[in-house]
Amino acid sequence: MSDAVIDLNADLGEGFGRWRLTDDEELLSVVTSANVACGFHAGDAATMRRVCEQAVARGVRIGAQVSYRDLAGFGRRSMDVPADELAAEVAYQTGALEVFARAAGTRVSYVKPHGALYNRVVHDEDQARAVVEGVLLADHTLPVLGLPGSRFLEVAGKAGLPVVTEAFADRAYTPQGTLVPRGSDGAVITEADAVVERSVGMARSGTVTALDGRRIDVRARSLCLHGDTPGAVALARQVRARLEASGVRVEAFA
Amino acid sequence: MSDAVIDLNADLGEGFGRWRLTDDEELLSVVTSANVACGFHAGDAATMRRVCEQAVARGVRIGAQVSYRDLAGFGRRSMDVPADELAAEVAYQTGALEVFARAAGTRVSYVKPHGALYNRVVHDEDQARAVVEGVLLADHTLPVLGLPGSRFLEVAGKAGLPVVTEAFADRAYTPQGTLVPRGSDGAVITEADAVVERSVGMARSGTVTALDGRRIDVRARSLCLHGDTPGAVALARQVRARLEASGVRVEAFA
Amino acid sequence: MSDAVIDLNADLGEGFGRWRLTDDEELLSVVTSANVACGFHAGDAATMRRVCEQAVARGVRIGAQVSYRDLAGFGRRSMDVPADELAAEVAYQTGALEVFARAAGTRVSYVKPHGALYNRVVHDEDQARAVVEGVLLADHTLPVLGLPGSRFLEVAGKAGLPVVTEAFADRAYTPQGTLVPRGSDGAVITEADAVVERSVGMARSGTVTALDGRRIDVRARSLCLHGDTPGAVALARQVRARLEASGVRVEAFA
Amino acid sequence: MSDAVIDLNADLGEGFGRWRLTDDEELLSVVTSANVACGFHAGDAATMRRVCEQAVARGVRIGAQVSYRDLAGFGRRSMDVPADELAAEVAYQTGALEVFARAAGTRVSYVKPHGALYNRVVHDEDQARAVVEGVLLADHTLPVLGLPGSRFLEVAGKAGLPVVTEAFADRAYTPQGTLVPRGSDGAVITEADAVVERSVGMARSGTVTALDGRRIDVRARSLCLHGDTPGAVALARQVRARLEASGVRVEAFA
Repeated sequence: MSDAVIDLNADLGEGFGRWRLTDDEELLSVVTSANVACGFHAGDAATMRRVCEQAVARGVRIGAQVSYRDLAGFGRRSMDVPADELAAEVAYQTGALEVFARAAGTRVSYVKPHGALYNRVVHDEDQARAVVEGVLLADHTLPVLGLPGSRFLEVAGKAGLPVVTEAFADRAYTPQGTLVPRGSDGAVITEADAVVERSVGMARSGTVTALDGRRIDVRARSLCLHGDTPGAVALARQVRARLEASGVRVEAFA
Repeated sequence: MSDAVIDLNADLGEGFGRWRLTDDEELLSVVTSANVACGFHAGDAATMRRVCEQAVARGVRIGAQVSYRDLAGFGRRSMDVPADELAAEVAYQTGALEVFARAAGTRVSYVKPHGALYNRVVHDEDQARAVVEGVLLADHTLPVLGLPGSRFLEVAGKAGLPVVTEAFADRAYTPQGTLVPRGSDGAVITEADAVVERSVGMARSGTVTALDGRRIDVRARSLCLHGDTPGAVALARQVRARLEASGVRVEAFA
Repeated sequence: MSDAVIDLNADLGEGFGRWRLTDDEELLSVVTSANVACGFHAGDAATMRRVCEQAVARGVRIGAQVSYRDLAGFGRRSMDVPADELAAEVAYQTGALEVFARAAGTRVSYVKPHGALYNRVVHDEDQARAVVEGVLLADHTLPVLGLPGSRFLEVAGKAGLPVVTEAFADRAYTPQGTLVPRGSDGAVITEADAVVERSVGMARSGTVTALDGRRIDVRARSLCLHGDTPGAVALARQVRARLEASGVRVEAFA
Repeated sequence: MSDAVIDLNADLGEGFGRWRLTDDEELLSVVTSANVACGFHAGDAATMRRVCEQAVARGVRIGAQVSYRDLAGFGRRSMDVPADELAAEVAYQTGALEVFARAAGTRVSYVKPHGALYNRVVHDEDQARAVVEGVLLADHTLPVLGLPGSRFLEVAGKAGLPVVTEAFADRAYTPQGTLVPRGSDGAVITEADAVVERSVGMARSGTVTALDGRRIDVRARSLCLHGDTPGAVALARQVRARLEASGVRVEAFA
């Protein structure tokens, strides 16, 4: 399938003040889309500015990685935020990042929820609607990145936002095509070769082997790579190299 | 002087979450320019959105009231923030507010530093440059509001930003035209009639009586009204009424 | 029932920095137990110190009102905080308040969860255990205040902590003795006379009329009064006056 | 000088939530006093608990490393905090840490200001007094750690607090015995052998060579080791080994 094309996205700029987490420079040499933290779970203003400049220098697209307001929990704790507050917070973060994207000569190209918010809008319709409302407040033409079959993408699509599906090469899938929850046996795939192989399979055939051995569809336009663990960058490089060697075009979504 | 014209500005949206401070609705019926808190000293995202909508409904212009990151101190504690961080923080706040201004059908029309930052950039050239750099990052055509003679307006002017001078009718002035520091005898004028009269004098003749009785120039295009004390709104109304009765046009700066 | 005795508790010190919410001075002249905010949903250090000094001057007991870390949401948003973090956060808040209680010549006398955490530990066993663990870390003899029948009091009791039950005179009860959820019809009783009458009934007979008219047990050693709404202090005074006029001793729990 | 004795202190627990900075386990195998971050510049509650438990297991003493409230700046930005707020914040942090020290079976043994606050109280008498007031609020017998000749130690001594002097083996000294300001040429000594040699000299003879080659007194009871740079732990080990090989007892202050 010489016409296979895939976007590679990763979370960047996830330090705060004195603290660093992601190796932004290295990741920017691998991915085509950078999910930049916007200050609510990570990401101070100076870091946001720097990452935007580096992304533009590398030709990488910038997305707003929006989160619950939760520095102490890194946005990984589900929160019952009222819809109007959540919508405004999503818009706030997107707008703050837009300044640095513009100053660097580009624009925010998409929005992707982070951590607990990402997981919650898979099924929580109220919060999904709130995030979509927040994106619409910021820019009603902005694509959103999310899980196929999620309420989030469904609501976003109905609201007229372009939706971009993503898959995770290092996560196990159920036969129904949902992610096996972290904490369950075999939920996270740590073996590098397996991750690389699944990446290529997802990009070329749009399928992956589920936990029960069945072949299922994943239909993802983007693959999410992780950058906050040791060896993550090396693995990301391998994934990209093998994708390209397999004839897959690695390219940001339109 | 039938051609006298003056802008009236006040700080708005200075609550946070459960807490309220300013009577935004009432103030918006008096002022022509609203300095909206952007989340660093006050102002959550939902409040910013609401105030922007109300300001547009009232025909009031929206400015970004940018601050040190200091909720606990309400931005009133001078901080040695490195220039690159301060610049990025000013841009961040301005961009966040811009989202709500645009969603409400308008744009952020100016930037005004808040509290300790306002006072510091009167004389601190490094921080003045950092704030100006932050404004330039956000939008290099954005006017800034500040004290005549301040390093801030000087640096901003040299950088090509439109500068708007302001005066305080409830603050005493030295013969040199600077504000008598809070804490000094007679620094704050609390008598309503005096405040009203000084407002009219400032707007009509561009002068005010200094502490030593001398008449000095203030050359202000805008008067700052305070909205966070009991009776503040009533006094603001009086000021506006007397200005108009005296033939002064109350109008936002261009 | 001349031997009826009741404690009156209210939330105090719920400002933060520049913002005020509760009329601490006035409430301290009514209540016998002060639930002092410890900095996570409200309550800066200087306020905590001041309220502790005022409470001691009034002979009012000091309790730690512990919360999720959520200033922006005032602790009113349920959060999936991992147990070890929640336990440590409860201990942290209690310890911070203890400094000011001791400096004022007393000790923290009890712990009461705030807002969303209060509601969550009614039924969430994991978080109930975490809060209890936090209290045990701080002081394994400290009483906890909570809802009769809650997991929280159950877990606390099993862990050997003294438990103190409380009731809400301004909230409707189901026939099963649980609170009618806010948002449901008639959940909050706003009519002052009704609140006063229910308070007296609860204190004297240990019963209250449920939504369906049935008389149910409430068995509360403490009544919670609210202090953050207009008229709240006046109503609290009325409640206390009527309790005393009815022969109820208003007195902190042992 | 077989009776030479020195304490080794380092900053620990300086992560926050998802972020790590100091290698706490390793440092605890070298130092005799652990300056534990208390949540204002770094240090979440769960980390504070863990570090206290580890310190007790290693026989290392626990000190409260108190800071300005400034997570974004890591406490490194000087702030004009009013004295009453600063005093209360110091007490708050110390009390919060005390809970975890007690739960681990010990007590907070001293207080050391962090970062910009440390530097400011060298010369700022108002803030020095405020920090001392905060320590007195928490425990009026608690030693404080600081720079010889600082206003802080002077004020603390007058207030009856035990004072402990410290020196920095990796910092250059002026002929007057003050630290050469960071940023000046030669201010920081990076060569490992030099740091080790200076440590031994400081501990054995109480002197060090100043920038101009003169031998000056440093009279320090404690040496501060840094733990947040690559190679820091290895260097700390070397310092300790050479101190012991030179007959210096490495021991916490009384």
